[in-house]
Amino acid sequence: MNREGVIFIISAPSGAGKTTLCKEIIDIFPTLRHSVSYTTRTPRPGEIHGKDYFFVSLEEFRRMVAADEFAEWAEVHGNCYGTAIRTLEESRASGIDIILDIDIQGARQLKERYQGGVYIFILPPSYEELRRRLNGRSSDSDEVISRRIGAAAGEIRESRWYDYIIVNDQFPRAVEELKSIVTAERCRASRVLEAVTEMFAIE
Amino acid sequence: MNREGVIFIISAPSGAGKTTLCKEIIDIFPTLRHSVSYTTRTPRPGEIHGKDYFFVSLEEFRRMVAADEFAEWAEVHGNCYGTAIRTLEESRASGIDIILDIDIQGARQLKERYQGGVYIFILPPSYEELRRRLNGRSSDSDEVISRRIGAAAGEIRESRWYDYIIVNDQFPRAVEELKSIVTAERCRASRVLEAVTEMFAIE
Repeated sequence: MNREGVIFIISAPSGAGKTTLCKEIIDIFPTLRHSVSYTTRTPRPGEIHGKDYFFVSLEEFRRMVAADEFAEWAEVHGNCYGTAIRTLEESRASGIDIILDIDIQGARQLKERYQGGVYIFILPPSYEELRRRLNGRSSDSDEVISRRIGAAAGEIRESRWYDYIIVNDQFPRAVEELKSIVTAERCRASRVLEAVTEMFAIE
Repeated sequence: MNREGVIFIISAPSGAGKTTLCKEIIDIFPTLRHSVSYTTRTPRPGEIHGKDYFFVSLEEFRRMVAADEFAEWAEVHGNCYGTAIRTLEESRASGIDIILDIDIQGARQLKERYQGGVYIFILPPSYEELRRRLNGRSSDSDEVISRRIGAAAGEIRESRWYDYIIVNDQFPRAVEELKSIVTAERCRASRVLEAVTEMFAIE
């Protein structure tokens, strides 16, 4: 049955387990892909243009911003990152679902500028567990961890305007919930009605 | 995590496989129950009051109709059947999800009178397959089958105002989709936000 591709937008406070969940879910669904963003940063060894990112010059990025070609974009540590409206439109038309792993500010921009996405917020089970997980990352200093915990409450408050909330307490359950959201959203009447209308010759 | 119970309303043309799907899904989820309706018909051997139906007199049923106690009700072959608003409210408050296996007219009444349910429509994969399945039921005459096929197009047209559409082509996939809808709806931000607000002491 033909149906349009669904755009899933996933956000979370740092340490909630978003990246691992996104990887897992893409492995499960053959027709679910990671959205490819545009960036002005230099490719790292092994990164492929069109797969990891679309690597563009600052001039090209600025041209796209001016031409209103981004559904959301931001500057992070001197580099620009953005999701092109065309990427979302192509996914929708081709029936390929895509997942956008973006921060809350990006998700908010997207919601204002683009209709029809499915917004999912991943939560840690508690502040204590969030601290424990962030401590487990050898790369982060105590100062960084404290700042992240401090930011979490403000970020969690933003979960109210998302469509779904997943509490990542037990990882397999969180995967099951994310998987269920993907499967359920594919059955949304608004998305399959056109195909159903054709299948049964109804008006 | 505390959350309110979800009301799932399932309709389908005769022969789409709704009853089998509903049984299967109730076996899967320990906190999902079949809604218990009120009826004026006589209990059949083995039927238990409060489990299969609430068996009430015609006078009591009429009193409940007059007192606006039904979310939906109908008279079928001289007997009355109805879903009490109280049944839905109790489920919602207790966090127990319930499934209502009702016809399209009942579902429409419910949607007009009761907010917050999840409406799911089950479709056969085609008219041909529907005819094949109805032929397989020894109990139905050719005339009954032809009438049901004739009614199906009109019923399928009603699927447009449901939230989800499941095409029951392969049974295990239809079960997986229904299961996913139940799990996903339990993660709806509107349903878990109160619990999340408490867990993280946000306002």
